[in-house]
Amino acid sequence: MGQKSSLVIIGNEILSGRTQDKNTSWIGDKMAAHGVPLAEVRVVPDIEEKIIEAVNAMREEYDFVFTTGGIGPTHDDITAACIAKAFGVAFGRHDDAYQVLLEYYGPDELTDARATMADMPDGATLIPNPVSGAPGFRVENVFVMAGVPRIMQAMLESVIADIAPGKTIMSNTITCNLQESIVAEGLGQVQDKYEDVEIGSYPSFRGGQLNVSVVLRSTEDGSIKQATKDVLALIDDRGGEVLSEVYQVPLS
Amino acid sequence: MGQKSSLVIIGNEILSGRTQDKNTSWIGDKMAAHGVPLAEVRVVPDIEEKIIEAVNAMREEYDFVFTTGGIGPTHDDITAACIAKAFGVAFGRHDDAYQVLLEYYGPDELTDARATMADMPDGATLIPNPVSGAPGFRVENVFVMAGVPRIMQAMLESVIADIAPGKTIMSNTITCNLQESIVAEGLGQVQDKYEDVEIGSYPSFRGGQLNVSVVLRSTEDGSIKQATKDVLALIDDRGGEVLSEVYQVPLS
Repeated sequence: MGQKSSLVIIGNEILSGRTQDKNTSWIGDKMAAHGVPLAEVRVVPDIEEKIIEAVNAMREEYDFVFTTGGIGPTHDDITAACIAKAFGVAFGRHDDAYQVLLEYYGPDELTDARATMADMPDGATLIPNPVSGAPGFRVENVFVMAGVPRIMQAMLESVIADIAPGKTIMSNTITCNLQESIVAEGLGQVQDKYEDVEIGSYPSFRGGQLNVSVVLRSTEDGSIKQATKDVLALIDDRGGEVLSEVYQVPLS
Repeated sequence: MGQKSSLVIIGNEILSGRTQDKNTSWIGDKMAAHGVPLAEVRVVPDIEEKIIEAVNAMREEYDFVFTTGGIGPTHDDITAACIAKAFGVAFGRHDDAYQVLLEYYGPDELTDARATMADMPDGATLIPNPVSGAPGFRVENVFVMAGVPRIMQAMLESVIADIAPGKTIMSNTITCNLQESIVAEGLGQVQDKYEDVEIGSYPSFRGGQLNVSVVLRSTEDGSIKQATKDVLALIDDRGGEVLSEVYQVPLS
């Protein structure tokens, strides 16, 4: 297996249900396309020990860790200080980050509160923020990004450019008008036949009817096409009708 | 502090970006209203050891654990077997669950694949599924639910009825036309003043303008109202205008 990434979402607002997280699906999609798929996500509150624990667990276990949230100028923005503690390095004013803020705001508008956004762990390298100035940063395999989706998405562009691509994961989604249980046994047999294809099965309601989407994912074009043939034959054999088939080679 | 809950989302489809998770915000909202707030979420792939590890970590640390996903009839539905392993108990046909399926499908339609949805850890008690028959289940402090939001939401109703309510968490969300950094220092001072109010600050773009929403959360009505006055005074003092104020006492 190739390299894997992980995500730590820092935010009480996600846990309270106030904010619908949209960063997971965005990052998941982009990293699958980049061949370094997202293998785990943790959502933790704005509590120092929980952030440190999650970041340290994820950076041990996965090749790359992304964090989102908690890098603004207010009292609840404690991510940068936590990352310093997680790595056991000093925390303080980052000269380049300060220059970025100075340029963005100008000397009159760079208040003390804004300047705190230049406080980073020792040895951090900057992640540019083309949307709202204040940069994210990288320490070793941990990339610290903003939580606001538009800003995170812009930061992720530079982050991805910094990570060597793996094999792109292709997917094929076949939706048919059968209930999941009708194809269950047959799908298990197809899965057993293809070690390098991951086959998932997802029921859904559409217009009051239970359908099933079969999702095949693989880095191997030949295998995914062969397994697709088997799935289509299975659906046909069980008297089902394919409602849609979406073959996707994501663009990084 | 009162009791806390946690959520383990089991699903490759969330990690790959194919499916936008909607269960976190739903459960987060309901549990805050119920006074047993969601304190952590983990999204793990359909891999036995990852599921077991996450469930065991969460049930140690929090009062209640919810899981969503992986309880259907196909080869990738391994949640129930993993829960049995996590608790170190036997796994097999659950008589009551089988009766539920028999009643729902009738003897002719209860295929072997469907019957596997009655395989559960020893000692499991059922969570009714008024939407599509196959029940979820509870083992000790772990509640195992479907991943399809409509089914999960229906199951959660019974789950919540099974959990003693804590103090309802009220929230007040004040959105104003100031940039976050303008109120940063003052908000920190208000936070320092109220130990029993959690104050979060969330920037957002609206019509190309950066606004900030200040969210106050507390179980104490008096404190939240007092802290709200301080925040409103702060916004006024900084020359800001309140765009909206939403005081919410969620209904369980």
